[in-house]
Parts: sequence; C-alpha cells; structure tokens
Amino acid sequence: MEREQALKIVKEQLTDHRYQHTLGVMETAITLARQYGADEKKAELAAIFHDYAKFRPKDEMRQIIMNQNFPQDLLQYHAELWHAPAGAYLVETEAGIKDSEVLDAIRYHTSGRPGMTLLEKVIYLADYIEPGRHFPGVDDVRALAKENLDTALIQAVKNTILFLMKKNQPVYPDSFQTYNDLVMRQED
Amino acid sequence: MEREQALKIVKEQLTDHRYQHTLGVMETAITLARQYGADEKKAELAAIFHDYAKFRPKDEMRQIIMNQNFPQDLLQYHAELWHAPAGAYLVETEAGIKDSEVLDAIRYHTSGRPGMTLLEKVIYLADYIEPGRHFPGVDDVRALAKENLDTALIQAVKNTILFLMKKNQPVYPDSFQTYNDLVMRQED
Repeated sequence: MEREQALKIVKEQLTDHRYQHTLGVMETAITLARQYGADEKKAELAAIFHDYAKFRPKDEMRQIIMNQNFPQDLLQYHAELWHAPAGAYLVETEAGIKDSEVLDAIRYHTSGRPGMTLLEKVIYLADYIEPGRHFPGVDDVRALAKENLDTALIQAVKNTILFLMKKNQPVYPDSFQTYNDLVMRQED
Repeated sequence: MEREQALKIVKEQLTDHRYQHTLGVMETAITLARQYGADEKKAELAAIFHDYAKFRPKDEMRQIIMNQNFPQDLLQYHAELWHAPAGAYLVETEAGIKDSEVLDAIRYHTSGRPGMTLLEKVIYLADYIEPGRHFPGVDDVRALAKENLDTALIQAVKNTILFLMKKNQPVYPDSFQTYNDLVMRQED
C-alpha cells in the first residue's frame, strides 16, 4: 500500500493530534530504518498504522483480545496496552495489510517482547522519540538512538517501566521480559 | 529449636559482619512479627537462618538448585539469588529445621514471590531494614514499615528492581511478579 492511501485510511481513525504524532513516527521510523538497515517501506507502513486502534472503544478491543485468543493476561493490565494487538488485528482485517512483519511491529509497539525484530525495535523507538514527544528523559533516548539502537531501546523500555513503578502501577510482564532480554543480549 | 542453639549453628557459617547483620534481622523480624501479628518464634528462627548458605561455594549452590529441581531459571540470573533457595534446602537437611513456613521465608527472602505469606514479608523486610543497613532509600522504607507492611514491602521491592535497572542488570522475573502482585492487591 502506498503512503498516501495508508495515511488517508488512518486519518479517519485518529484525532488531529494523534495524526500529527503518527506523521512524526513515520518520519522517525524511516530515518531509523535507513540508519540501522531495516526495510524502509515496512517501517513506513507499520508507523502509519501503529495507532490505528487507539480510539476504538475499550469493549471492542477487549472483545478482539478475547475472540482472537490473544494473550488473555493483557486484560488484567492497563487498557493502554490493548490498542497494539487489537490494532494489528484491525489493520489486517479492515485495511487489508497482510505482511506479518508489519503487523507484528504494530502488535508489539507498546509492550515490546523478548526477541524483538529489527523492525519492531524501530517502530517502538520511533513511537517513543518522534519530534512531537516531550517528557523527561526523551532527549537522552534521542541522543542514544543516533549511536546504538539497542542501547536507546533499553533506555526507553526502562523509562516506561520506571514511569509506571513511580505511580505504583502494575507493569505488563512482557515489558519486564523485554528489558531482561535486551540487557542479557548486551552482556553476551 | 531455641535461639541460642540456632545462633550457634549459623555463627559457624557466617563472617562476623554477616553474623551481626543476622542479629539485626532477628531483632527487626521479631518486632515486625509482633506489630503485624506473625508468629514471633517462626520469625526469629527464619531470620537467624536466612543467610545460612550465604558463603557456600557457587558450585555447591548451583548443584543444589539443579539436583533439587528448584526453578532452573535462577541459574540464568545473578548468583546473589541462589543462597536463598539453597539455604532453605541446607537449613532443612543440615540444621534439621522442618517447618515449611520457616523454610519458605528463607527460600523467598531475596526474590520475593507472588502471594507472599505474612512471615515471608516480615523476613524480606527485616533483611532490608535491619539497623545495620545503610543505603539510599532505606530510611524511607523503615518509616513506612512502622505504618503499613505492604506499603513498605512494595517500596523495598521497587528499590531493589530500580537498583538493578540503573546498572542495566537483569531482574529475576519473580521479583517483577512480586511487585505486580503487591500493587495489584493494593488496588483492590
């Protein structure tokens, strides 16, 4: 699918603010893909569609997670996690994207997962550092992203976990496991 | 087993410094047990024996974990974790302690676990806040321990996780799950 058609589809699903964010993720994902050798067209497509389900009703996302037999423990954790796997499903069924690498990059863009692919890392990180993002620590991750994809990703995952822990909120186990997986690979 | 006999047994296993730490954990554990309604005698016994295996050779602890079919993923994480389950085993087989509540309090005093018992919480926390402990954040946990056992425990578990993450070290999944379990119960 070409960029203009993809953008047209997602624009209908998003607020203006979230659409601007999506454009930022798209540009950043293409830059990271070029720098680290990921497929630029897949990065573009995954970035455009990454938040496709962001504004769907919680009940619809819950039903998708239940009916598609996605990991059911998602439902015990923050609903903010749900739009990623629900989005992968809807992007496939409604927008007709069939590329499993692109769909997985959408699926894991919020939680991460152990054994993330290069494309998944690019989308996770682009979502975190796109120019519209402003929160404590984001500039450090932007700087790291120019040097080393994994080091930047570890910092982003850590920041996300610490943010939740400061508020005494539960952390989805896949996020912890993503952290462990990344730091254990760096040790090797 | 009486206190004097138990102390005599562990003294032979520990450095002077670690024996002094053990006495601090014992006093703190008895105080916490009294305050929160745990069994004081079991708290005393578990505290005295909690670091029994601290100075055993790594190879011996690894063998125990393998031979006793303890969770094998322990071996992929920091060896600092090993003395707790290896200690529970050695305290039973060498010192003849058979009380499963006491043994579990020893077993989980470093990692924690989801669904910790009152006694396990008392030992974990006493180990963290005994008067000989001096590190950033310990005074906050001491103050919390006077008010609410779970709130203090959450802070201790968080500090432990954050300490490891700051050093980019892997975190044993049971520690993350202990955190999640405790904060999810507080939400209810």
